[in-house]
Amino acid sequence: MATAPAHDLRFGLDRRVTLAGPLALDCGTALAPVEIAYETYGTLNDEGSNVVLICHALTGDQYVASTHPITGKPGWWTRLVGAGKPVDPARHFIICANVIGSCMGSSGPASVNPATGLPWSMTFPVLTIADMVRAQALLLDHLGVGTLAAVIGGSMGGMQALSWPAMYPDRVRAALVIASTARHSAQNIAFHEVGRQAIMADPRWRGGAYYADGDAPSSGLAVARMAAHITYLSEAGLTEKFGRRLQDKANGELGVKSFGFDADFQIESYLRHQGISFVDRFDANSYLYITRAMDYYDLAEPHDGVLARAFMGTKTRFCLISFDTDWLYPTAESRRIVHALNAAGAEASFVELSSPFGHDAFLLDCPEMNRIIDGFLRAGESR
Amino acid sequence: MATAPAHDLRFGLDRRVTLAGPLALDCGTALAPVEIAYETYGTLNDEGSNVVLICHALTGDQYVASTHPITGKPGWWTRLVGAGKPVDPARHFIICANVIGSCMGSSGPASVNPATGLPWSMTFPVLTIADMVRAQALLLDHLGVGTLAAVIGGSMGGMQALSWPAMYPDRVRAALVIASTARHSAQNIAFHEVGRQAIMADPRWRGGAYYADGDAPSSGLAVARMAAHITYLSEAGLTEKFGRRLQDKANGELGVKSFGFDADFQIESYLRHQGISFVDRFDANSYLYITRAMDYYDLAEPHDGVLARAFMGTKTRFCLISFDTDWLYPTAESRRIVHALNAAGAEASFVELSSPFGHDAFLLDCPEMNRIIDGFLRAGESR
Repeated sequence: MATAPAHDLRFGLDRRVTLAGPLALDCGTALAPVEIAYETYGTLNDEGSNVVLICHALTGDQYVASTHPITGKPGWWTRLVGAGKPVDPARHFIICANVIGSCMGSSGPASVNPATGLPWSMTFPVLTIADMVRAQALLLDHLGVGTLAAVIGGSMGGMQALSWPAMYPDRVRAALVIASTARHSAQNIAFHEVGRQAIMADPRWRGGAYYADGDAPSSGLAVARMAAHITYLSEAGLTEKFGRRLQDKANGELGVKSFGFDADFQIESYLRHQGISFVDRFDANSYLYITRAMDYYDLAEPHDGVLARAFMGTKTRFCLISFDTDWLYPTAESRRIVHALNAAGAEASFVELSSPFGHDAFLLDCPEMNRIIDGFLRAGESR
Repeated sequence: MATAPAHDLRFGLDRRVTLAGPLALDCGTALAPVEIAYETYGTLNDEGSNVVLICHALTGDQYVASTHPITGKPGWWTRLVGAGKPVDPARHFIICANVIGSCMGSSGPASVNPATGLPWSMTFPVLTIADMVRAQALLLDHLGVGTLAAVIGGSMGGMQALSWPAMYPDRVRAALVIASTARHSAQNIAFHEVGRQAIMADPRWRGGAYYADGDAPSSGLAVARMAAHITYLSEAGLTEKFGRRLQDKANGELGVKSFGFDADFQIESYLRHQGISFVDRFDANSYLYITRAMDYYDLAEPHDGVLARAFMGTKTRFCLISFDTDWLYPTAESRRIVHALNAAGAEASFVELSSPFGHDAFLLDCPEMNRIIDGFLRAGESR
């Protein structure tokens, strides 16, 4: 493997590459070319043995540890990735790529279809989590990376992290799967379907063809985000953070019930804010495509429903972390994965952490999670 | 109390009455006149001691034990109410009234405002659960009913059943509160807010003024119903009923993934059906008003947050029933109520029943629930 010089244009922040492909997709068609937007942090070592791939969640992006170009907010996982953190550019060569289907520079419904010169919109092929992983493997080829020291992801990122060793058993030495699952449940699908219906019911959606005038179905997308957001938080966390507290008035007066339909309760204005701010940074069609990919996700399906068969003979080390108040991908789902890994003879560790923050906990300050990830990664390096 | 002759036009199926009022409302205004649509079953006994008031849930109605005029379906609680059932017209004089704010004949946003001759729409006063109960008390006055042998309700019906002894301690001898709560939690409010935003985001909502042309915001209302419907079912129940099973095709072929956005999974078509069929029988503005009333509901609020004070000195007997898989109004909320009742010195029994069906369990076949209700009602009659 060639060592990349420091000035290699393939490496660094805010990179974009157009790969020739074709990328064979689960739906039966192929994508070509394949655009991938990504970032790298740190330096690929001479042995190529220090690569950590970070996989993002549904509405995440490649800006894992650098400022988001639209919101101006810090990277979404700076608590885990950065100087002195478990994933450290001083030790690791870190890659984070926007999943295909998304809207931050990788091929997706908002990209231009080279055959027509117009945005793909809903003619973009329907993707799977496996397709996202295949695109990441293409990117690794481009970057001259053979094997991953580790792949790490939470939520949909965890689905990718778990798919990696199932799909490329020789290319990944360790997989960290956080607050995730091996399949989408009926309830998971149900919540996503509500979101999709909210988007598609918005008259501005127009079958997905809203790119020309930029009048996007933001009302529908905001409702979709609000519904999803509830699933990211625990009931107890919501009660602690908001309870039934009323919104104070703009003039500083204490809140009272308006006996109207404005946001009286703090939880109402919080949710509305979540919906409204989301539409500035996310494409409604991408939301349809990515939720669909997640709903199609069931790692056991190609193995007659036996999850263990997805990992037979694997040499990858696994670390699973769940959160006790996560009702979106509850601990029981992580435990199912661990049982399957055990049955497959895999090396797997599993911790359920306690947190009041529900599914969102993996994105928040969690020193215990950091310690576990740090220990797991260092154990791999010392081998 | 006057005994009503059998031909009394106040009694029977599909009754409607316009009461002069005024009905003082929590919002500070008054409603006059007050229209109430209701049904009665059975015969008021000479002592007036056999009256059972049934309170319906968010999207319920007065057709508790008779055919719904729009859907043609049997009454919504025929498993509990009817010949040989715990609530039996042969023994009880049963009353069920459409709550004010609703759309099945009682005063609500779709009713005509006598001051303008036009539908109230969003100028209808914002209501509370207590206002609904006050309207029921007005109806009892009209029917010549002094005291209720029992008030029974599940979900929002349970909120009314619990409010009755708090508001009219001398008019209710027993209250059965099923799958309910003494306050709406932050998560409860959040789900309702998603539904309201879905309705109000529908361009056909038009600030609620859609009655003139009948072009109602049915897309938004369907999305609201879908989101709410998920909360009525348990995760385990969804998995058992639907899992990840695919929808079979119309031609009888086994389902396969379409790699499109049609309903591939059975849970998707089920939810879509729930949304679509709901809009035929329910008014979007009523959905806004009733969810608002539920969100405002907190029985402890007028008592400095001390729930027990709502029931101090009560002579009403209470029976609470919760379901172990109900995550909308979980057992913990019923337990809170029982603790408060105990602190108030009230006679209260409490059972958590096991069911795979989540919140919806109270509407489904549940022989244990029927036995408990039957025993509780008969114990009251033998005193």
